[in-house]
Amino acid sequence: MIFSSQLMEAAVNEFAKLPGIGRKTALRLVLHLLKQDKEMVAHFGETISRMREEIRFCSKCHNISDADICSLCANTGRNHKLICVVESLREVMAIEGTQQYNGVYHVLGGVISPLDGIGPDQLQIESLEARVKKEKIEELIFALSPTIQGDTTIYYIQKKLQSTGVRITTIARGIAFGGELEYTDEMTLARSLQNRLPIENYVKN
Amino acid sequence: MIFSSQLMEAAVNEFAKLPGIGRKTALRLVLHLLKQDKEMVAHFGETISRMREEIRFCSKCHNISDADICSLCANTGRNHKLICVVESLREVMAIEGTQQYNGVYHVLGGVISPLDGIGPDQLQIESLEARVKKEKIEELIFALSPTIQGDTTIYYIQKKLQSTGVRITTIARGIAFGGELEYTDEMTLARSLQNRLPIENYVKN
Repeated sequence: MIFSSQLMEAAVNEFAKLPGIGRKTALRLVLHLLKQDKEMVAHFGETISRMREEIRFCSKCHNISDADICSLCANTGRNHKLICVVESLREVMAIEGTQQYNGVYHVLGGVISPLDGIGPDQLQIESLEARVKKEKIEELIFALSPTIQGDTTIYYIQKKLQSTGVRITTIARGIAFGGELEYTDEMTLARSLQNRLPIENYVKN
Repeated sequence: MIFSSQLMEAAVNEFAKLPGIGRKTALRLVLHLLKQDKEMVAHFGETISRMREEIRFCSKCHNISDADICSLCANTGRNHKLICVVESLREVMAIEGTQQYNGVYHVLGGVISPLDGIGPDQLQIESLEARVKKEKIEELIFALSPTIQGDTTIYYIQKKLQSTGVRITTIARGIAFGGELEYTDEMTLARSLQNRLPIENYVKN
C-alpha cells in the first residue's frame, strides 16, 4: 500500500496491529473515521487510551474493574459466600447475562496448561485459597472449559481446598436446550445419562 | 452484554460504531488491547485522534494530505501537465501501487449520482476546470468506475472542458490479465473487441 499521507499510514498501521484486522480492513476503518467529526474521532481515541490507562483488576476477584473493588464484589445484595470460579472476564459476562446467578466470582486468568507453560503459580489460585479460608466461603462453583486443562485445574484446586470443607461443584454438562440428541457427541451424551436428574428438578428449572 | 467496568463498556461501544465491527468483535479487540502495554494503547489512541485532527485535503488535487499541498502535487519530478481524474483516495493508492503513472491526480470526491443526491456541485469539478485552464493541462485521464454514474460524470466534465482543447482519455476496459475469456461479461468482451489493439502495442506493454 502506498500512502500520500504519513498520518494516515500511521493510523492504518495501528489498526492493522489488532487481531483479525488486515491492512485492507484497517484502511476501510481509517477512511470511515476520516469522514467523521473531529470531536467524534478524538473521543474514540481518548476512550481507548483512557480505558487501558485507568482500568484495574479487582483486588478481590481479579475481574476487570474501574475501582479497587469491582462492582460485583462491592454489591452487598449478592451472596458473598458463593464463588463462581471462571477463567476470564468473558465467562463472568456470559453468566451475568443469564441474570440467574447471585453469588460473586473469582477470575483465575486461565487454566493449568503445562504445554503452554501455564502452571498454578501463573493463575490466581493462591488468592482463591486465601479467600475461601478468610471469608468462610460455603460453595465454589467451577465454570471452566470442559477440557483436560479445565478438569486438571478443578482437580488441583479441589485437592488444595479439601481440608477447608468448602462445598465444590461444577456447572452441569449436558445436551443444550434446542440441541439435537443424535448430533450430540458421545462424551456429552454419556455424561448426561450418568448425571440424569429426577423429573421434579427438570420441571423446576 | 453486561459489563462490570464502565471504562470497558465505553471502549466496546466506540469500536462497535466502526463499520463491519459488531459488539462481539469490539469486545475481542478491547480484550486484546487490555493485554497490551499502556504505552502501546496510548499510542494507538493518540495516532487515531491526531490523524483526524491534522489531516487535510490537498488544496490542488483534493487528495488527503499532511500539508496544504500533498506530496504528489509537491513532487516536481512528476508530469504536472497530465491529470488522472479519480473518485477517491482509494483509486490514487491503487494507481500509485502500479508504479507506472508519473502524472498528478484530481480527486472528485465521488461521481454524479442524482439518485443519491450527488450533483456536480458536490464534487470537485469546478476546481478541475480551473486547474485545466490555469495550469495548461495537456491530458485528463479518467479512471472512474465503469458504471452509468461514472460515464455520466465523464460526459459532463468532457462537455464543460470541450472549449479548452485538453485531450481527454479514459483508462482501457478489457479482459483482466489472468481473466478467463469465457467468464468475462458480454459488455466487457464486446468493448475489448471494439477497442482491439495492434499487436505491437500489446507486446510493448
